[in-house]
Amino acid sequence: MSGFVPVLDVVVMAAGKGTRMKSSLPKVLHKVAGRSMVRHVLDTVEGLQPRRVVLITGHGAEAVEAHLSHHSLSAAGVLQYARQMPQLGTGHAVQQAVPLLPDDGVVLILNGDVPLIEAATVQALVQASGGQQLALLTVSLDDPTGYGRILREGASVRGIVEHKDATPEQRAILETYTGIMAVPARLLKPWLARLNNHNSQQEYYLTDIVAMAVADGVGVLGVPTTDETQVAGVNSPQQLAALERACQARQAEALMAAGVRLADPARLDIRGQLVCGSDVEIDVNCVFEGSVSLGDGVRIGAHCVIANARIAAGAVIHPFTHIEGEQAGVEVGEGALIGPFARLRPGARLGAEVHIGNFVEVKNSTLAAGAKANHLAYLGDATVGERVNYGAGSITANYDGANKHRTVIEADVHVGSNCVLVAPITLGAGGTVGGGSTLTKDTPAGALSVSRARQVSIANWQRPAKAPKA
Amino acid sequence: MSGFVPVLDVVVMAAGKGTRMKSSLPKVLHKVAGRSMVRHVLDTVEGLQPRRVVLITGHGAEAVEAHLSHHSLSAAGVLQYARQMPQLGTGHAVQQAVPLLPDDGVVLILNGDVPLIEAATVQALVQASGGQQLALLTVSLDDPTGYGRILREGASVRGIVEHKDATPEQRAILETYTGIMAVPARLLKPWLARLNNHNSQQEYYLTDIVAMAVADGVGVLGVPTTDETQVAGVNSPQQLAALERACQARQAEALMAAGVRLADPARLDIRGQLVCGSDVEIDVNCVFEGSVSLGDGVRIGAHCVIANARIAAGAVIHPFTHIEGEQAGVEVGEGALIGPFARLRPGARLGAEVHIGNFVEVKNSTLAAGAKANHLAYLGDATVGERVNYGAGSITANYDGANKHRTVIEADVHVGSNCVLVAPITLGAGGTVGGGSTLTKDTPAGALSVSRARQVSIANWQRPAKAPKA
Amino acid sequence: MSGFVPVLDVVVMAAGKGTRMKSSLPKVLHKVAGRSMVRHVLDTVEGLQPRRVVLITGHGAEAVEAHLSHHSLSAAGVLQYARQMPQLGTGHAVQQAVPLLPDDGVVLILNGDVPLIEAATVQALVQASGGQQLALLTVSLDDPTGYGRILREGASVRGIVEHKDATPEQRAILETYTGIMAVPARLLKPWLARLNNHNSQQEYYLTDIVAMAVADGVGVLGVPTTDETQVAGVNSPQQLAALERACQARQAEALMAAGVRLADPARLDIRGQLVCGSDVEIDVNCVFEGSVSLGDGVRIGAHCVIANARIAAGAVIHPFTHIEGEQAGVEVGEGALIGPFARLRPGARLGAEVHIGNFVEVKNSTLAAGAKANHLAYLGDATVGERVNYGAGSITANYDGANKHRTVIEADVHVGSNCVLVAPITLGAGGTVGGGSTLTKDTPAGALSVSRARQVSIANWQRPAKAPKA
Repeated sequence: MSGFVPVLDVVVMAAGKGTRMKSSLPKVLHKVAGRSMVRHVLDTVEGLQPRRVVLITGHGAEAVEAHLSHHSLSAAGVLQYARQMPQLGTGHAVQQAVPLLPDDGVVLILNGDVPLIEAATVQALVQASGGQQLALLTVSLDDPTGYGRILREGASVRGIVEHKDATPEQRAILETYTGIMAVPARLLKPWLARLNNHNSQQEYYLTDIVAMAVADGVGVLGVPTTDETQVAGVNSPQQLAALERACQARQAEALMAAGVRLADPARLDIRGQLVCGSDVEIDVNCVFEGSVSLGDGVRIGAHCVIANARIAAGAVIHPFTHIEGEQAGVEVGEGALIGPFARLRPGARLGAEVHIGNFVEVKNSTLAAGAKANHLAYLGDATVGERVNYGAGSITANYDGANKHRTVIEADVHVGSNCVLVAPITLGAGGTVGGGSTLTKDTPAGALSVSRARQVSIANWQRPAKAPKA
Repeated sequence: MSGFVPVLDVVVMAAGKGTRMKSSLPKVLHKVAGRSMVRHVLDTVEGLQPRRVVLITGHGAEAVEAHLSHHSLSAAGVLQYARQMPQLGTGHAVQQAVPLLPDDGVVLILNGDVPLIEAATVQALVQASGGQQLALLTVSLDDPTGYGRILREGASVRGIVEHKDATPEQRAILETYTGIMAVPARLLKPWLARLNNHNSQQEYYLTDIVAMAVADGVGVLGVPTTDETQVAGVNSPQQLAALERACQARQAEALMAAGVRLADPARLDIRGQLVCGSDVEIDVNCVFEGSVSLGDGVRIGAHCVIANARIAAGAVIHPFTHIEGEQAGVEVGEGALIGPFARLRPGARLGAEVHIGNFVEVKNSTLAAGAKANHLAYLGDATVGERVNYGAGSITANYDGANKHRTVIEADVHVGSNCVLVAPITLGAGGTVGGGSTLTKDTPAGALSVSRARQVSIANWQRPAKAPKA
Repeated sequence: MSGFVPVLDVVVMAAGKGTRMKSSLPKVLHKVAGRSMVRHVLDTVEGLQPRRVVLITGHGAEAVEAHLSHHSLSAAGVLQYARQMPQLGTGHAVQQAVPLLPDDGVVLILNGDVPLIEAATVQALVQASGGQQLALLTVSLDDPTGYGRILREGASVRGIVEHKDATPEQRAILETYTGIMAVPARLLKPWLARLNNHNSQQEYYLTDIVAMAVADGVGVLGVPTTDETQVAGVNSPQQLAALERACQARQAEALMAAGVRLADPARLDIRGQLVCGSDVEIDVNCVFEGSVSLGDGVRIGAHCVIANARIAAGAVIHPFTHIEGEQAGVEVGEGALIGPFARLRPGARLGAEVHIGNFVEVKNSTLAAGAKANHLAYLGDATVGERVNYGAGSITANYDGANKHRTVIEADVHVGSNCVLVAPITLGAGGTVGGGSTLTKDTPAGALSVSRARQVSIANWQRPAKAPKA
């Protein structure tokens, strides 16, 4: 059957409320590794190149549809929605998709709250259905309580029984249905039409089509996976947290397999994409968000939080560094030294060998190679030349209360301590600014510029005395 | 027996030295989740509404009694002390309590180093005793080495044998005595009087009363619990750490069950009470101490340490934020944005939409709605009006070396960068303070106030040259 | 055999490439707990007082030899190198050492990528060989896949079979060879000479000498250890991380056994030596590097990173404190309060009761007893007297762009907020510096010194208006 190339249509169940989540957010919008669960599923589905994807929405339908409005499957016109209201069971959910499903495809049914399913797994399932059979993805669980059990007769599946309807003997079966199946539309549709809700829950069970397939003489295959994480669903914050850790563990494992050295794989969080060069070292408790790349030999110290940044080869990020690039991104040049206690904000672009030290904030500023701001400083909306030394406690006053203005510090300028540079201002190349100066006008190149009051001393000054308590 | 309402007297064993703790602190004063172990026990006992609680003290008795002097059981006159000196065994310990125990009660015996016992568990034990029988709380352990084994004859207990006195057959028994029992005082007292120390340790074993009960024809019930954490005792720093983690895991589980979303339940520490609204998210490695409440939708970033604070709905606490309210408490208003690298100290009271940014410290200051201090600043003993913008690097000089003075910044004032506001001082509403100013006098409303030396430049200034090494 | 005192020669295998490490660093140079793996082995070997240590190098030989050039075994002339190029198996590796091994010793063969082996374990192995026998260190593994299996006949070992050459029955054996053996040189040498590479890998297996010993009637002992961590080798970043955590867990266990109280033993990293007094408490996520000592009663807050520091009794290190002593070391005096968000750099020497608060950096400075710098400040190259109060935002301008100069602040000086002290400068004892001053000249004792422009206000000042967007 390996040559079978189905036309694939996908149904994603995303209508459930998730009562146990105790959240105003629809369940499938809760995030794992920084992405909503439904987005995980759609991103995986996208790799299967489906003809159509029908998302069954219900609780919080508007929020779910808005959340996905920018997904590339949506832009491509592949993603469509079917509203299930009220929710009368899994079979009822798929019934809502019927009008959107052509008869000639194989229908893959996934769950929006089973986020870590992988493309290879469902591709194998679709291949197994072969356009002729009903293929069920199954998993054996140590404790299958609550899950539908697979009733087998040798290689074939004879039925699925929901836990609440199962006999004690059936409850002893460990193989369970994952909620994921592949089935030709031409078979699925008449079965869906024949579903009833004559059971203790008065719901339309999708799994009842198994008995119909058996009765119709259609083959039913149970395709087992051994990977519980791929088929794990989320119904509570506890399950969400467990899946988050499982997902993080996988990401850590993949990084290590690629040569990244982690001080503690259990204390790493990646919420997005982390791309690493060779000989990268990441210390404990780091969090990466969005799109982050680390060049060869980059070292990330303990307790760093880094989002949307490109950090070039040989840079060292000391502990307690916070980088948040948002859309603008942050760039850190080769061999740069950042932190500890540094904060790089959107639009910080640092050249090679730049040093940003403790309690320094950089925002929307470009620092050329070799520039340094090592202590307690703020650089906002600044253009800083090569080898500039920006003194401790110095501030770019970039905001006049209404508008932001630019500070230009040309190459080789030395700015003293506790200066204020009132933008817009340009400090000419090679100049020096005396400590404690507040500058409001451009300074000539090569000059010493200063604004400073004369130092005076008043002898025998009596310090205030401690006031008596009332 | 559910209708049995005993008069309850409680004995808490708290005399042990805890040699393996290798600490100068008495064992029961070591903390789990921020509370001393003996306090955990007393807080639980308080919920049982006992007539009397007798704490057996010995090693470090003064320190233990001082530590509990403000406990509400002490204030209510319920808590009394009996000194056990020297320590000659568990039976000897309870003997010291006899003069303080009325004859008509049921005596519940607890251990001050078994901190996580729950009220429902001991209530069931007291009910089981029924005022007529000796009821022993038992637990089955995978490895019972070191613990007294329960010798059963069907439902009845025939005896307890200490590990060191047990035969190999008895050592194979997994059910052990937890050290917790309930027994009518009128039965307990004569048994205690008959204890002897004819055993290998020459100690008076409380467990010897089991044989007396059997001999006297009094029923002995073994009431099993399956929850090892509730009955776990602490004899070493390792056990203390293990119980700390077990306690933290329970707290994390309870939060998640209530809908709180935790990035990693294993990396959360709550040492006090954390109350959360709906849709609260807590990132990795946060520590909460004292009394903290988080309103609906509050998000706490990674690596935050927060003590004694009320954080209103919609506020976002960015990573690396340190809040320590102590007695004065810290308040964070709705929709406020705090951090990263912010520190809020006692008496910080922030209104709605206040922004406190990186490297900013706020102490004993009130900020009205919409006020902002985004960068490298200190606000101490200040009253800050609505929409004030407090510039980067600016400082309230609130301390004259002897007394603290107040800074008042009225609404809509803009304070420039690197200013010093020498308190006491009032900045009039709507005024502007030029960057780099040191102000010592009040400023008029609506005015631009500045103290600044003229900017001069000296052309062709020769920077110092590197001194030759000696 | 306990009286047997062998002359010990050691061979350490350190030639492997470690392809799965995917690193440009030779495998044995990867670090566990802050020390390279080969250094762990050599440090342990040093305790055995060997006559000679032959390190077999190959991949990255120069880097390995350079790394060890300062090791005390090297300085003592004990450490020698034998180059294995190309690498043709374990037997081939040891063959390279033969010219350096005297005939009268017992040869202990260790692996440079098995870092946590302990001296007592290998001493027992050497004793077992007794100068007469071949002694193999073995361990039973739950999953021995990939490891050579021990073929026993009662107490004697009949052979070792490599996993890839093992029969299914042999693969069921759980006892494996650790790669560590002790063997008299006079037996080893002729066996090595007889090795061949007639096997599926065409390698010279050291383990083939077992069959030779059996054939020669020499006793072969299997000396089992139950400690998998001691014999665990590293071939991948995953194994490196696992061993790192195992090593950290051991260190945490040892600290707790000595009475140190850890909030979470799984969240502690010690990369070097941490020496603790009594009643030391360490909160979550702390990292210690180099040589750190903590006096009695020291408390270390959450999220601290501390390297090369001596912290005296009763000092409290608040959360988010970064101390990096490097060679110069950092000293924190008795009862000092440091942090949160403090950074102490090399040469910071703080006396008793010194307070260093948030966003304060101290470098190469001495602070006498009772000095305080509580807020947003920089002290570099300064000598600070007793009880000095160093104001918020104040900076020592210690660097003139070419040279560093010293700031001396004599006892009882109060430095106001946002001051700049342009070094070299001396502030006379008991003086006061007004807030916002930039001082370039020495100040008299007891005087008030200030450099400050007059405060002026311009009424009805119009703030800039928001510029219209282009």
